[in-house]
Amino acid sequence: MRLDHLIQILLPHDEKFYTFFEESAQNLVNAATILPDLLRAKDIDRDLVLNKIHDLEHGGDSVTHKIYGELNSTFVTPFDREDIHLLASALDDIMDYIDGCASRFVLYKIREGPPTMLKLVEIMQKQVLELRRGVSMLRDFRDAAPLQKVLETVNEYENDADTVFEHAIAELFEREKDAIQIMKLKEIYVMLETATDKCEDAANVMESLLIKHG
Amino acid sequence: MRLDHLIQILLPHDEKFYTFFEESAQNLVNAATILPDLLRAKDIDRDLVLNKIHDLEHGGDSVTHKIYGELNSTFVTPFDREDIHLLASALDDIMDYIDGCASRFVLYKIREGPPTMLKLVEIMQKQVLELRRGVSMLRDFRDAAPLQKVLETVNEYENDADTVFEHAIAELFEREKDAIQIMKLKEIYVMLETATDKCEDAANVMESLLIKHG
Amino acid sequence: MRLDHLIQILLPHDEKFYTFFEESAQNLVNAATILPDLLRAKDIDRDLVLNKIHDLEHGGDSVTHKIYGELNSTFVTPFDREDIHLLASALDDIMDYIDGCASRFVLYKIREGPPTMLKLVEIMQKQVLELRRGVSMLRDFRDAAPLQKVLETVNEYENDADTVFEHAIAELFEREKDAIQIMKLKEIYVMLETATDKCEDAANVMESLLIKHG
Repeated sequence: MRLDHLIQILLPHDEKFYTFFEESAQNLVNAATILPDLLRAKDIDRDLVLNKIHDLEHGGDSVTHKIYGELNSTFVTPFDREDIHLLASALDDIMDYIDGCASRFVLYKIREGPPTMLKLVEIMQKQVLELRRGVSMLRDFRDAAPLQKVLETVNEYENDADTVFEHAIAELFEREKDAIQIMKLKEIYVMLETATDKCEDAANVMESLLIKHG
Repeated sequence: MRLDHLIQILLPHDEKFYTFFEESAQNLVNAATILPDLLRAKDIDRDLVLNKIHDLEHGGDSVTHKIYGELNSTFVTPFDREDIHLLASALDDIMDYIDGCASRFVLYKIREGPPTMLKLVEIMQKQVLELRRGVSMLRDFRDAAPLQKVLETVNEYENDADTVFEHAIAELFEREKDAIQIMKLKEIYVMLETATDKCEDAANVMESLLIKHG
Repeated sequence: MRLDHLIQILLPHDEKFYTFFEESAQNLVNAATILPDLLRAKDIDRDLVLNKIHDLEHGGDSVTHKIYGELNSTFVTPFDREDIHLLASALDDIMDYIDGCASRFVLYKIREGPPTMLKLVEIMQKQVLELRRGVSMLRDFRDAAPLQKVLETVNEYENDADTVFEHAIAELFEREKDAIQIMKLKEIYVMLETATDKCEDAANVMESLLIKHG
């Protein structure tokens, strides 16, 4: 039996949920960290990067299903079943958008992402780092202030992302004259911006946990 | 008084909800079955097919409103009011996307759908057939395993749909050189793919019913 | 101390929520009223109109956060905490789409909106006027019929919006030959149509309040 399996079996149920959420958020951090490698026109093996992101996405799926499975078999959960379900789904959604963005970059054979696209990726990286910090704070609600601060920061980054996104699209329409190229890049921009929205969704579920348990 | 009205009045409330959900899912099966007729460049009366789908959509709306009305007038429901509401909405959403896809096919004067588009429709057909089986299983929760299997199948088809969709769009960008044609076909692909997502949403509501009542 | 601050402090909690919702809905009415100024090719200062809409959006954000803050500090609320949260979010979403539509109109340097676009804005204006009436009715649930009527009207307008939207896009593909111009206008159409969907979402939350408290 592998050590991590043993730990999972021995941990009390509450601990498992916290551990799963941390694992899920760490997966997001890992995927967001390597995503920029695809956007830079370097001599790298793009399929290798894409496969790494796919692996992290599969890993995320597997954690999400462990959470759902645990929900089915656990009588007492630290929070409402529905909220645990919602938070797991929100984290899963973020990964789906990171993965979808990476896939499209390779499928559409885009050589290099515009600098503004990298800027949007960086904002999203900061959000998932905050979410990673935030889910760790779920273990102890006695002081709500630090988590509240983290959630506000995630939402502020989402506002930044909105502004960057809006100007990125205007710039794209202004500079790029090939309609098909506009469509491809615009789709990736929309996916990145949606990833930042989903980070806000995850923060909002945690905010509602704060309202109920804080 | 028509026979079906009489049956509705005499049925106990629980039975009505189950019957409505089955009716709603059967409408989806009927619409998904004739949708491919629009995509094939045959000598058929397209407006006739479109009108049939519109009729099924109106029929679906009417069942959805019967469910909401029954919710307003019934004290005891087999599941949480909110879950009944959510499932009815999810089934309604699937129909809206099938109908929207059919409308756009005719409105945008598209002669023939690419083979990959037909493939996506076929996946969605399989999903609504599974959902039709799934809602019938809501009548008896004593054995959760068969419903669990159905819901997993719906989700697996959604994964298949994601892969087909992704490659369909890449192929479209590669082969089609008319940007406007790309926009039209892409929009229909997105609606089809969203229909398969909504099937997953319906399955997820049923999964949450399983969690609560299973 | 400003008079409105004093009123807020002295009002009982229930009154505050009702007042906030009315304020939020009134902001929507104000923004929807000036939006058409951007679509008409008149000699007006477009940045001035855009800034007014941005101000209303910021005002709306601030009311939304007051609602969330009040939820955190109030023990007894007139409705479920989650429903208050959902209604506040739905109203906030409508404003985001009005604001996003205005921003894109200016950012994409569109001289004049097609007549059908104005028609869609007018439907959305009627919806937010109904929502403004509807939130006032939340103060007194003893007679559910008038609110039920308002919510049905919002949903009927949403159906109208769907039809106008569908034909607007078909018309756009038919008449406009510049693919980039199609993309710009289509994006604004989609945002407007989404605003009308979000109005329906707000109406649906109120409908679910009716189901629970009516």
